[in-house]
Amino acid sequence: MKILFKNADVLLRNDDKYEVLDGAFVGVNDDKIDYIGAEKPIEKYDIEKDMSGKLLMPGLYNNHTHVAMTLLRGVGSDLPLQKWLFDTVFPIEDKLDNYRVGVGSELAMLEMLAGGTVSFTDMYFLLDDEYEKVINSGMKANISRCVQCFDPNENPEDNFRIKESLDYYNRYNNSADGRVKVDFSIHAEYTTAEHIAKYYIDRCNELKGNMHIHVSETKSEHLECIERHGMTPTQWLEKLGAFSLNVNMAHCVALDDNDMEIIKKYNATVSHNPTSNMKLASGFARIPKMLDMGINVTLGTDGTASNNNLNMFEEMHLASIIHNGFNNDAELMKADEVIKMATLNGAKSQGRAECGEIKVGNKADIIAIDMDKPHLFPALDKKALITYSAQDSDVCMTMVDGKILYENGEYKTLDREKIFYDVNKIVSEIYR
Amino acid sequence: MKILFKNADVLLRNDDKYEVLDGAFVGVNDDKIDYIGAEKPIEKYDIEKDMSGKLLMPGLYNNHTHVAMTLLRGVGSDLPLQKWLFDTVFPIEDKLDNYRVGVGSELAMLEMLAGGTVSFTDMYFLLDDEYEKVINSGMKANISRCVQCFDPNENPEDNFRIKESLDYYNRYNNSADGRVKVDFSIHAEYTTAEHIAKYYIDRCNELKGNMHIHVSETKSEHLECIERHGMTPTQWLEKLGAFSLNVNMAHCVALDDNDMEIIKKYNATVSHNPTSNMKLASGFARIPKMLDMGINVTLGTDGTASNNNLNMFEEMHLASIIHNGFNNDAELMKADEVIKMATLNGAKSQGRAECGEIKVGNKADIIAIDMDKPHLFPALDKKALITYSAQDSDVCMTMVDGKILYENGEYKTLDREKIFYDVNKIVSEIYR
Repeated sequence: MKILFKNADVLLRNDDKYEVLDGAFVGVNDDKIDYIGAEKPIEKYDIEKDMSGKLLMPGLYNNHTHVAMTLLRGVGSDLPLQKWLFDTVFPIEDKLDNYRVGVGSELAMLEMLAGGTVSFTDMYFLLDDEYEKVINSGMKANISRCVQCFDPNENPEDNFRIKESLDYYNRYNNSADGRVKVDFSIHAEYTTAEHIAKYYIDRCNELKGNMHIHVSETKSEHLECIERHGMTPTQWLEKLGAFSLNVNMAHCVALDDNDMEIIKKYNATVSHNPTSNMKLASGFARIPKMLDMGINVTLGTDGTASNNNLNMFEEMHLASIIHNGFNNDAELMKADEVIKMATLNGAKSQGRAECGEIKVGNKADIIAIDMDKPHLFPALDKKALITYSAQDSDVCMTMVDGKILYENGEYKTLDREKIFYDVNKIVSEIYR
Repeated sequence: MKILFKNADVLLRNDDKYEVLDGAFVGVNDDKIDYIGAEKPIEKYDIEKDMSGKLLMPGLYNNHTHVAMTLLRGVGSDLPLQKWLFDTVFPIEDKLDNYRVGVGSELAMLEMLAGGTVSFTDMYFLLDDEYEKVINSGMKANISRCVQCFDPNENPEDNFRIKESLDYYNRYNNSADGRVKVDFSIHAEYTTAEHIAKYYIDRCNELKGNMHIHVSETKSEHLECIERHGMTPTQWLEKLGAFSLNVNMAHCVALDDNDMEIIKKYNATVSHNPTSNMKLASGFARIPKMLDMGINVTLGTDGTASNNNLNMFEEMHLASIIHNGFNNDAELMKADEVIKMATLNGAKSQGRAECGEIKVGNKADIIAIDMDKPHLFPALDKKALITYSAQDSDVCMTMVDGKILYENGEYKTLDREKIFYDVNKIVSEIYR
């Protein structure tokens, strides 16, 4: 199928900056972009779509989330952390199974596709159905079964989480033409015994790939690791050889300068989760410094129990403004940098070389913003509109690998009614 | 006209907390709420509106803005403050006139009504058309012509801004059945000579009413006032007798403890503008402390050149989370408090006793949230959904004084096409 978008304003990357080409044409051939230009291409396309008044931009990458937590959306908001975790989150998570996690992830995909997210990096458990549902949805995702260990004497070969993680890798990695990848994952230093982490990292290094970890989310977690190991979580990961993998480090609120040097040296990724860090009072990750150092910083929503949505426009907005406020410097965060964090940097973190940018030869992961809204008018600075004014509800089309998965409220691959029905049933069962 | 909303989930206030009454009835008679209950009222209504799947809540109060700055939406974003002000904002504002300010305010009302704002507190200049347009729109507003003085030797009686302010008061205060009020306004301490402020405050005190002022928006403004006057802006206002009026103090980022005591003593209002304070790097107002003291704290967007939208759901979201992040305390800001800031506290600040709450006898300023959205599902905690998940685009109906002004994308009193046409024309003229 060849689709030609016409009369579109197109957000393109040029010399490390974004610029908007107005009234342009973008051609999609199968799963790839094959034309971008101000003139209509000579070649014929099967379908021409008039995008007047729409802005085409690369689809968004939610680079740290736990999507099935839609089933726990907002439970225990405003409770203290321990009470929230032990009295609400854990007892509900105990009632999850593969089916329920699958349905929760479908609900998340409804939300993500409607908001312009084309790919997400997920960490959770009981993933059998989730992998299948994501494959069927047409979305992209890097999904990991996180490894934990609460028994210091456990034999690594008996750790069922490691077995599941490696099993998922064998079954699903690079399935659906590479749309679905299986990441490895250590939940966090504080939830894993060192010998288990070491054994697992060694297995992962034999296979190569991506590793997804919570790192220094809070000051106390960071300091407790230093007490336990005499080193920071980042140093600990370096010691265990994790950085031979393509590492995605979520939160990174409490990193020290040396941690950042290590991250830069190994070309690892920091996933910044501003809403979650504010809501849970974790604090302000030193994102401006990381960006200055050239670290690959991405954006994520975290799960919906600590956010409480999967809205990447909110993350872009927060990332654009909170660091200015915290550092008393109105020039710190620029629209150019924030848009790149939400798109190209996310694709890089997921190991997707031909993604994250509207460019000839790239995968056609394109979203359309309906600019005919009072809050996006007048359009004096379209880049600033994206980061400071636009809402995820302004997304009117989400295309992944050349297939339109969402358009004007309609889902092409997901059955909204059935998913809502299934979620209602699960909620009535698990919140009894 | 008597309208009955049926099958609605209704956000009610009870014992200083909000609670949701599910599947309820709300009756509106002319401009007032005359029934709330789980049972259908016996009395007949002219129209019954089925609100299944909708949540009714009090309309939002944007308690600090400069609405006509929609004409400058996002200009100079990411520029340093001085360059932004002197090279972009001021030269464009020089080209404004009554007509242009009126059209800019109409564009703002399109955005505000679609996002559930029923009333706004505006500070600007060239307001003749704006007053007329707001009266015709059906919205509520407290609008002020701000007083400034850049000539230390000016005779107060010659200050044309004071004359205009008092003239607007005489012409428009409490017009349109009290929907439109004329506030007094001193722009800020640093833009006004003391003898001018004193003269003006004395005139205002003869008339009584509301006073709207920028106060301690930045640390430097606060410290420079201490250098000039030996006192803080709040102390300076107290010395000049401003607090005999109902004072609305915008920003208040750099207040000291004594300032807060003064504000509490006089029962004045602090308008918190989190987006603007973050974007312009002003810093974190000490909102949790002010709330603890019982100060009337409200929310505002500021103008769209420093935000860049008029989205009160974004302000609620930010107010809910950034103070937790800044103070490392996840329990600081609660949904109950934030919803009250955006509704009841705003109404109080505007001097509207029968507004800001869904209550029998109150003015019918009601908005409906369409809860049938993936990001608002499952609805395990509806109050948390409002502050942490909902978007202004979820508003499907906005009613002011019993009249529906916006419903499902349609405006009943504003001509969206004409306003867009007029704005486009003005933009082509002022950005030449």
